[in-house]
Amino acid sequence: MRVRFAECDPQSIVFNSRYLEYFDVAMTELWREAIGPYEESMGDLGVDMVVAEAGLRFRAPLRFDDEFELRASIRRLGTTSMTTAIAVIKDGTTCVEGELRHVFVHQGTADKREVPDEVRAGLTPYLAD
Amino acid sequence: MRVRFAECDPQSIVFNSRYLEYFDVAMTELWREAIGPYEESMGDLGVDMVVAEAGLRFRAPLRFDDEFELRASIRRLGTTSMTTAIAVIKDGTTCVEGELRHVFVHQGTADKREVPDEVRAGLTPYLAD
Amino acid sequence: MRVRFAECDPQSIVFNSRYLEYFDVAMTELWREAIGPYEESMGDLGVDMVVAEAGLRFRAPLRFDDEFELRASIRRLGTTSMTTAIAVIKDGTTCVEGELRHVFVHQGTADKREVPDEVRAGLTPYLAD
Amino acid sequence: MRVRFAECDPQSIVFNSRYLEYFDVAMTELWREAIGPYEESMGDLGVDMVVAEAGLRFRAPLRFDDEFELRASIRRLGTTSMTTAIAVIKDGTTCVEGELRHVFVHQGTADKREVPDEVRAGLTPYLAD
Repeated sequence: MRVRFAECDPQSIVFNSRYLEYFDVAMTELWREAIGPYEESMGDLGVDMVVAEAGLRFRAPLRFDDEFELRASIRRLGTTSMTTAIAVIKDGTTCVEGELRHVFVHQGTADKREVPDEVRAGLTPYLAD
Repeated sequence: MRVRFAECDPQSIVFNSRYLEYFDVAMTELWREAIGPYEESMGDLGVDMVVAEAGLRFRAPLRFDDEFELRASIRRLGTTSMTTAIAVIKDGTTCVEGELRHVFVHQGTADKREVPDEVRAGLTPYLAD
Repeated sequence: MRVRFAECDPQSIVFNSRYLEYFDVAMTELWREAIGPYEESMGDLGVDMVVAEAGLRFRAPLRFDDEFELRASIRRLGTTSMTTAIAVIKDGTTCVEGELRHVFVHQGTADKREVPDEVRAGLTPYLAD
Repeated sequence: MRVRFAECDPQSIVFNSRYLEYFDVAMTELWREAIGPYEESMGDLGVDMVVAEAGLRFRAPLRFDDEFELRASIRRLGTTSMTTAIAVIKDGTTCVEGELRHVFVHQGTADKREVPDEVRAGLTPYLAD
């Protein structure tokens, strides 16, 4: 991925909120690899996720046109929630790292539910030690 | 309204796409004044709008923390569509101006429908000569 | 402030990254009240701030057209950094709360510097107990 | 490229302003191919571009996770400005198409200047008939 001009601010660096857009892309791609396209796989199960917590630590800025990669691993897979560690990496250097905690809900509601078995099975290989 | 830092790019001016976010705010406020809160009033009628065309002319840049106002007037109210002229004004100077053409659809679909009578009645006073 | 349509996602709630845009608005307004317009006051001092850490806890979603207010108080004012607690409140309920840790730098650089005396004096009344 | 979740609105389609972010990516990639990385090549020449006009026609919506490509060709290369036609295409279908008119300026100013010879030479092969 490359930093888009529109993602940078007058300090000529990526504005902090944009990293949460990148984190969401990391989740989408983790899902595709582990379980399948998010909407299809989750729609079939009648389940959805909402973000409950986010944390970000900014170590070095990204700038317009920088190439970077996203790495995601699951730190904790609980009964109704999961915590994913995400890193934004440029040339081997971690520029931003953080976590997203998601809660599983019945689709179209805010009601918590257990992680479906199919999802748990798919995600388990991505659990960090 | 004031320009937010996150809306500005490395040229230290509001990035062009952000004006379409402002245009949408102008539509929301025009609706509130003419008809009522958008979601309530349109939901009751089972109708929605989608943007079919947008045009923008950038005359002078806005910068971080600039105060500005939005002006909207309806240029054309057709059978199934409307065209709204919108201006972004700072200290009496038009910085950006443009148009949005919206098409009325049955809610939850992409199927065109006529402008509801209640909407037409509410919008008519905002028709520019 | 009101939630803009463009800030909401297909779950019909404000997308998580947008709260960091709101947090930045809260910082801008805290600055205006405590010290003066950010760019003027900081430019005169040759100083700038960069975000080092951000944390957010999402308690209840905001939706399109919701009215909300932002509250900011300084939790810690160190030698070269400050931590600000920010809450997004709707009808007396805290929907999202979090912190931003900023580091003071010499303008145009990433080099840390001490909080200028004028800034420290202005911010001290906003320190939470 | 794929549509990001954060780019979609409560109608479950890409919000209109996001296409101007895509258009900017199209310009960046056109530049890379025709002339070189934007900031390096333009910085060396002491020149920059600002957007003067934008037009968009929305033919079909893009949704979360849709794959699409961007196509750009130069419609007009004038003395101090250029107009680029851009299309957002999914599975061979043009979903959104439009134009950006850019004006060349002396870097760090709003003062118009002629298109540099190096830029004109690089862009000429991309002129649509």
